[in-house]
Amino acid sequence: MERFSFASEVAFVPHGDLLDGVTVAPLTAPMSEQSPFQAAIFRFAPGGRLARHSATALEIFAVLEGSGEVIGPDAVGEPISIGEAIFWSPGDEQEMHSATGMSVLIIQGERLDRFRRSTATP
Amino acid sequence: MERFSFASEVAFVPHGDLLDGVTVAPLTAPMSEQSPFQAAIFRFAPGGRLARHSATALEIFAVLEGSGEVIGPDAVGEPISIGEAIFWSPGDEQEMHSATGMSVLIIQGERLDRFRRSTATP
Repeated sequence: MERFSFASEVAFVPHGDLLDGVTVAPLTAPMSEQSPFQAAIFRFAPGGRLARHSATALEIFAVLEGSGEVIGPDAVGEPISIGEAIFWSPGDEQEMHSATGMSVLIIQGERLDRFRRSTATP
Repeated sequence: MERFSFASEVAFVPHGDLLDGVTVAPLTAPMSEQSPFQAAIFRFAPGGRLARHSATALEIFAVLEGSGEVIGPDAVGEPISIGEAIFWSPGDEQEMHSATGMSVLIIQGERLDRFRRSTATP
């Protein structure tokens, strides 16, 4: 049993220009250190955005708090809010922003699949 | 790009007597279907509890909302609240409850490690 924090105070602003107004608080060891998957909390301040890019891995994007807009491969903006998630495939173009702020859990992995009710519900 | 929900409305009450007043909304495919890891949102209603048992896998328990109490291997209760997490090893005895309600992300996996700032912070 080992306690740790993923609060706003320990989040950091990643290098690069993909993120603007977004901090990242990782929960797991990163895939860059041979982890087969990684999970982190992305906190979008009001006006925060993730610029358009292609997903590099299978990815689950799950909104934990607040709301925003997602623009996927078809370039059409769709609202997304708390309790809603998107499963992305590598190569999918993606872009997100939030006018009012949101917290998002992002999970990426080599053998990731989203939960599918038809096969796994008790 | 595939949308899905993990809202309260799609959460279920698992079989068994470990959980009382807690619903589960999985995000990923389960380890029982050969996934190398699994992640789910556990929502504790006020008074909800997870009875004492041994962790079966490496596990991250991260409080997303609200607060509660965790009782680990030393049998001493410790408060835990939003932004705080615990990394459990298989065999660790664990028990949680919340008087006022909390939402928790639980990630389990065979090769899971928590984020460690010393090795991975940019």
